[in-house]
Amino acid sequence: MSRIVAFETTDIRFPTSLSLDGSDAMNPDPDYSAAYLRIVTDAADGVDGHGFVFTIGRGNDVQVAALDALAGHLVGRELEPLLDDMGRTNRALIGDSQLRWLGPEKGVMHMAIGAVVNALWDIKAKRAGLPLWQLLSRMTPDEIVALVDFRYLTNAITPDEALQILRDAEPGRAAREQELLTTGYPAYTTSPGWLGYSDEKLARLCREAIADGFGQIKLKVGADLEDDIRRLRVAREVCGPDFPIAIDANQRWEVSEAIEWVNALAPFGLAWIEEPTSPDDVLGHAEIARGVAPVRVATGEHAQNRVIFKQLLQADALSVMQIDAARVGGVNENIANLLLAAKSGVPVCPHAGGVGLCEAVQHLSMFDFVAVSGTREGRMIEYVDHLHEHFVVPTDVRGGVYAAPLAPGAGMEMKAESRAAYEWEGTRVGV
Amino acid sequence: MSRIVAFETTDIRFPTSLSLDGSDAMNPDPDYSAAYLRIVTDAADGVDGHGFVFTIGRGNDVQVAALDALAGHLVGRELEPLLDDMGRTNRALIGDSQLRWLGPEKGVMHMAIGAVVNALWDIKAKRAGLPLWQLLSRMTPDEIVALVDFRYLTNAITPDEALQILRDAEPGRAAREQELLTTGYPAYTTSPGWLGYSDEKLARLCREAIADGFGQIKLKVGADLEDDIRRLRVAREVCGPDFPIAIDANQRWEVSEAIEWVNALAPFGLAWIEEPTSPDDVLGHAEIARGVAPVRVATGEHAQNRVIFKQLLQADALSVMQIDAARVGGVNENIANLLLAAKSGVPVCPHAGGVGLCEAVQHLSMFDFVAVSGTREGRMIEYVDHLHEHFVVPTDVRGGVYAAPLAPGAGMEMKAESRAAYEWEGTRVGV
Repeated sequence: MSRIVAFETTDIRFPTSLSLDGSDAMNPDPDYSAAYLRIVTDAADGVDGHGFVFTIGRGNDVQVAALDALAGHLVGRELEPLLDDMGRTNRALIGDSQLRWLGPEKGVMHMAIGAVVNALWDIKAKRAGLPLWQLLSRMTPDEIVALVDFRYLTNAITPDEALQILRDAEPGRAAREQELLTTGYPAYTTSPGWLGYSDEKLARLCREAIADGFGQIKLKVGADLEDDIRRLRVAREVCGPDFPIAIDANQRWEVSEAIEWVNALAPFGLAWIEEPTSPDDVLGHAEIARGVAPVRVATGEHAQNRVIFKQLLQADALSVMQIDAARVGGVNENIANLLLAAKSGVPVCPHAGGVGLCEAVQHLSMFDFVAVSGTREGRMIEYVDHLHEHFVVPTDVRGGVYAAPLAPGAGMEMKAESRAAYEWEGTRVGV
Repeated sequence: MSRIVAFETTDIRFPTSLSLDGSDAMNPDPDYSAAYLRIVTDAADGVDGHGFVFTIGRGNDVQVAALDALAGHLVGRELEPLLDDMGRTNRALIGDSQLRWLGPEKGVMHMAIGAVVNALWDIKAKRAGLPLWQLLSRMTPDEIVALVDFRYLTNAITPDEALQILRDAEPGRAAREQELLTTGYPAYTTSPGWLGYSDEKLARLCREAIADGFGQIKLKVGADLEDDIRRLRVAREVCGPDFPIAIDANQRWEVSEAIEWVNALAPFGLAWIEEPTSPDDVLGHAEIARGVAPVRVATGEHAQNRVIFKQLLQADALSVMQIDAARVGGVNENIANLLLAAKSGVPVCPHAGGVGLCEAVQHLSMFDFVAVSGTREGRMIEYVDHLHEHFVVPTDVRGGVYAAPLAPGAGMEMKAESRAAYEWEGTRVGV
């Protein structure tokens, strides 16, 4: 038996706004940040658990306060009972009735719970000597179903239906694991398309993306239609007529505006339109999906929880589902999201980028391929080539694919020297 | 000209869990709390602005951290330009792209913005020498429309449509203001129905509610069907066959479970079923509404923003809309919510209770009556007789009606001695 002895939180911010990396129509000057958690135990193995919430700067301190508010749930507790029943552990954190009032299950408090859950998975995976994707992929269907909180989901998927999906995928697990280890998981890149880049930089980065083997690029749009047309023309000329180009409006539009704008850009050939409007607007996304078809709608990086994903699927509001490793309540809720998508036959193409999101979310897509949907068809993980050098197990993306990570853990561990170097010590910054 | 010179925040918690006041199926032991904000200026008038976020205990410190994160936006700023264009001020707070990432527009960060907006309205109303409801009711339709952020709303209501609603209500304003000052605004009471109370206490409080002149009571349900049947029978016997009795499940059920449970209780005669399932589940509420008709569905106290209210109305998912003064982004967003309801012809019956919610939300209903919907028909404000003594302008509820407050301000100012007496100094409490 071992105990959790400390809950170490750090406010980490990278000054990315200085280079306009990550600039889009809603986020002109992000400073990629992490409200970082390290769970320390008294075990002789020296294993600790790492998780974080990704933010883009101001407010990262609020997110750290939310992590601190969860310390009382865990510090002093015996670790093994928590790790042995991660379904119960997850439900206990989500179920704190007083903390629940702050959401429920959304925003700052819910993301903090997600970071705690992910940090516990990190310990569990390290103790098992496996990368998270492999640990999850080797659990039985019953064990996986027990991880999921089906509250509010049963009108879309029941535990029995989830079990059947997982059982159907069971026979092919070993073969797919081998295939994954050999060929990796497809990536697409957003690096060329940030709004703050010049046309020359855009063209150069498009060429590099193709040369690097990526199967799709994505451009930020939504600030100015003429600019978007010009930039799409540049990208299309460089990439050729058949190369998939997605666009991302980062919630910029009204519903009718989205339909008009996307239809104006559709002649350039669009792989999908991402986040056309408010991430809360299920019915709006459904209206947009009908209005821009056959262009596909993608969303999810700001979907606050499984209840929103459930409805987006019920309303045929998306064709591409974009989970995020640090937005919802952690690994457990993302398993619910993967099961919802699998039942609907909708491909999951996770949101990544930021800081550490690629490192974390690849485990979920790889688990999905091996043990849930059983396919990579039409799936890929976003990739942005920023800040990977700060992670103990950085993503290994070559030839346009994510190589399956082999190191034990959940992938969110940042190097100690990076954590120290980018610990935020600034004063509060206003507008 | 004057400046904002301080942003004073306090973590205030009342130990209400000791008496089971406020206990329901999801919240067994709430400690009614306020993440409290006082905005201090250097003006000679000595007027300061008070606002808060209501929480139920743990996590109130996180909510205070979120208030602190907004200080940089306001401290040192000239006050008059902020107060003169509250629409712009509201949009600037909501629009901080970095803070927005923590929601967007939901949960801890959004509620903190709401408290700031409300505290600024408190100053504006005090400077005008008017209670908030009267200040708002005397603004022109154009001025009111300028307060609203229509982003993500225009497929349900446009600024022009809002203007027309307000203009249509303009001729009757003076008469309704007089009527309100004379007869007040109807209240209903939840005091009898907390889940932790004995049948004897329930029966006694039902009798008292009727004797006190309330036109409706509400019972908490959802923990155990047999208990609910027994308690409804007690209440119905005491109240008689025609007295309106609403029930409130506080998000306890799955969709199909809600339909079955409500239909099992429907023979007792239900004024409405409140919060049957997840507050995020627009489509689920719509399915429940169809499944329990003619029983009406009420929801909204946990609706995170105007985009959720918009969809609830679009989907015919509610028949009674329950705004909350401290859940969304403050007075401005609640004006949007009132306009959405008015366009749909749905009555607004605000959530109140907790600590200070009655004091705050009455201003919005009274403004709605005078200047927006123009009617009290089918409308009433929740009332719970707890903790009013801590407010500088406590609610005056007699004969089952809220008397219109006459004191200047927005109603959220807690007495200094109460703030000092209930300031939280405890250590963090786990489960």
